[in-house]
Amino acid sequence: MPNWLLPENIADVLPSEARKIEDLRRLMLDRFRTYGYELVMPPLLEYVESLLTGTGHDLDLRTFKLVDQLSGRTMGLRADITPQIARIDAHLLNRRGVTRLCYAGSVLFTRPRNLLATREPIQIGAEIFGHGGLEADLEIQELLLHCLRLAGLDHIRIDLCHAGVLEALIEGVPQAQVIESELFGALAAKDVPQLEVLTANLPVAQREALLVLPKLYGNPDIIDEARKRLPDLPGVRAALDDLAYLAAQSKEAVVTIDLADLRGYQYHSGVMFSAYVDGIPNAIARGGRYDKVGQAFGRDRPATGFSLDLRELAGISPVEARSSAILAPANDEPGLRAKIQELRDAGEVVIRMLPGHEHDLEEFACDRVLVETGGRWNVTAR
Amino acid sequence: MPNWLLPENIADVLPSEARKIEDLRRLMLDRFRTYGYELVMPPLLEYVESLLTGTGHDLDLRTFKLVDQLSGRTMGLRADITPQIARIDAHLLNRRGVTRLCYAGSVLFTRPRNLLATREPIQIGAEIFGHGGLEADLEIQELLLHCLRLAGLDHIRIDLCHAGVLEALIEGVPQAQVIESELFGALAAKDVPQLEVLTANLPVAQREALLVLPKLYGNPDIIDEARKRLPDLPGVRAALDDLAYLAAQSKEAVVTIDLADLRGYQYHSGVMFSAYVDGIPNAIARGGRYDKVGQAFGRDRPATGFSLDLRELAGISPVEARSSAILAPANDEPGLRAKIQELRDAGEVVIRMLPGHEHDLEEFACDRVLVETGGRWNVTAR
Repeated sequence: MPNWLLPENIADVLPSEARKIEDLRRLMLDRFRTYGYELVMPPLLEYVESLLTGTGHDLDLRTFKLVDQLSGRTMGLRADITPQIARIDAHLLNRRGVTRLCYAGSVLFTRPRNLLATREPIQIGAEIFGHGGLEADLEIQELLLHCLRLAGLDHIRIDLCHAGVLEALIEGVPQAQVIESELFGALAAKDVPQLEVLTANLPVAQREALLVLPKLYGNPDIIDEARKRLPDLPGVRAALDDLAYLAAQSKEAVVTIDLADLRGYQYHSGVMFSAYVDGIPNAIARGGRYDKVGQAFGRDRPATGFSLDLRELAGISPVEARSSAILAPANDEPGLRAKIQELRDAGEVVIRMLPGHEHDLEEFACDRVLVETGGRWNVTAR
Repeated sequence: MPNWLLPENIADVLPSEARKIEDLRRLMLDRFRTYGYELVMPPLLEYVESLLTGTGHDLDLRTFKLVDQLSGRTMGLRADITPQIARIDAHLLNRRGVTRLCYAGSVLFTRPRNLLATREPIQIGAEIFGHGGLEADLEIQELLLHCLRLAGLDHIRIDLCHAGVLEALIEGVPQAQVIESELFGALAAKDVPQLEVLTANLPVAQREALLVLPKLYGNPDIIDEARKRLPDLPGVRAALDDLAYLAAQSKEAVVTIDLADLRGYQYHSGVMFSAYVDGIPNAIARGGRYDKVGQAFGRDRPATGFSLDLRELAGISPVEARSSAILAPANDEPGLRAKIQELRDAGEVVIRMLPGHEHDLEEFACDRVLVETGGRWNVTAR
């Protein structure tokens, strides 16, 4: 095998795409900052006990493991940054009030999500800790929509779901609780035959409710339908009230409801959402409440947030990255040096010519050139 | 062990430091861009054959290994980005002319460089491919100095060395060539007793020259001293001419010469340099020529560049990161919403109050507040 060959679903990012990713990264981090989100950078490697705490089997299988030569213990390469941020909030910052944190960094998967997906997404996201109210969920959704609009995306659809519905339905039903994760999975996949098998021995009310969930999707009117068709339990009522409130508040996106859309790493506890863009079948961003994740680190704080893959976003964002540049001769004259410095300080790209130069690069179009006239250096069209 | 405990020499980066790292990252990437360097993003994981090609044993021991579940082959977590950039130039871009590339990303080490060093530095750097002349080395050094000055550092010293001196001394001396890497190591460590042992069986001229190298350091006048004390070989003469030219050209930093400072990953082939800052014993940045690295990927292109660790730079840069913010009440009034949006679009940090808010965070100082007077929202001091 040639030694420049990369592993499957692992790729270099070349100049034009890299610039686009970098631009979107800055655009989002800057927007997070103006909302008061503080940047943190958790490590790529942690002991598996920290990395996989409370997040379930799914993340475990997707996490690369290696042995720490210093301690002999097993470390994992993070496959998700969100639990790391919860650890930082719970243990390291240990603040009492509301904390807003954001991050951007690579994550790695042992196996790709699908045949063409990368195993090294660049995860970017924002999280609010310490506030359990719907105001925090609204702020997070507003921030996501704001970022997607800045990335040039329109016609965004937010799909809302609520982990509390399933929770309430299986509460007090031990034979349902032991198969909770299988129920999650069958609902997320809208696998009705599998749901029928799983619910065969459950009480009739629960069984019927679980079988009707995959049908409860559509515009927010479906919430009234759900009130009629689901058992009138306090947990179900509260979840549907939350969804109705959020759907009514949303001003910037089309809202749909999907009561069975329970994908994710099973750490969600309240409102969950996915953002969709016209013409792209998969969600571009996902988020929601995960109030219980901090518990494993000693502090059970309310938490809500979202994340997305910057590479995926760069693939669909229409923002243009290529920029124009000025070519400068290979000449060490002080006047030229000063002029180049001045142009670069003003943000212009000035490329010094070296023998053998190919002028038009992937990222820069040299449309201008520095020429001397009467002892002065000026920029002219090429 | 508590599950929030991180592995040794691995740490979270908290808000104030993270912001500083991010600011320096942008400052450097922006400066690279104005010089015409194109950003690329190589992957964190590659097959070990690609990652370790031609770079020697040192990098091998420092590289984490893991098994690829898709191919069964061994992959490594990169411990250095420079060879990846050479691979991209040689194989992927495959351009004929001069190519300027830059990058920023995490690297991982199995063992830290010293007791307190991180195992996860953030490497940032720039490289020129396709030009073997000293103009390229000069541009690289100028770019580094420019970046360090922008990071608020003054009194920078550039320490120059040249791999060609040792190469010329052992050329045609087989018994010296077989111990080349040991000689490299002993010279870099200035371990004269070890050098005496290693050179015991070499011809007298070579032996004396190798033993004098550790003494040839100081201001650029030492080059004349070296011309007298080293054998008058073509390779030695060319290397000393290179150093004399670069020392004479340097306008922005104090230059010193150290003919034995051969540290690095043994992939250097010409001029090598290290940058030092007052009061910091270790080099803050290293760079130089590594013309042969691309060979392993099928194209032997001239190459020169530099890299540094952004975390280390953030530790010594006096640039201030904390910024002021405006506190906004938790109120959904449309006039307030519009005002907040306007302030954020202008780059201000506006933090929405949520019940339980602690106002002064690590990164933001809320020194102003939004208040309503006569139906209009205004920013006033807090």
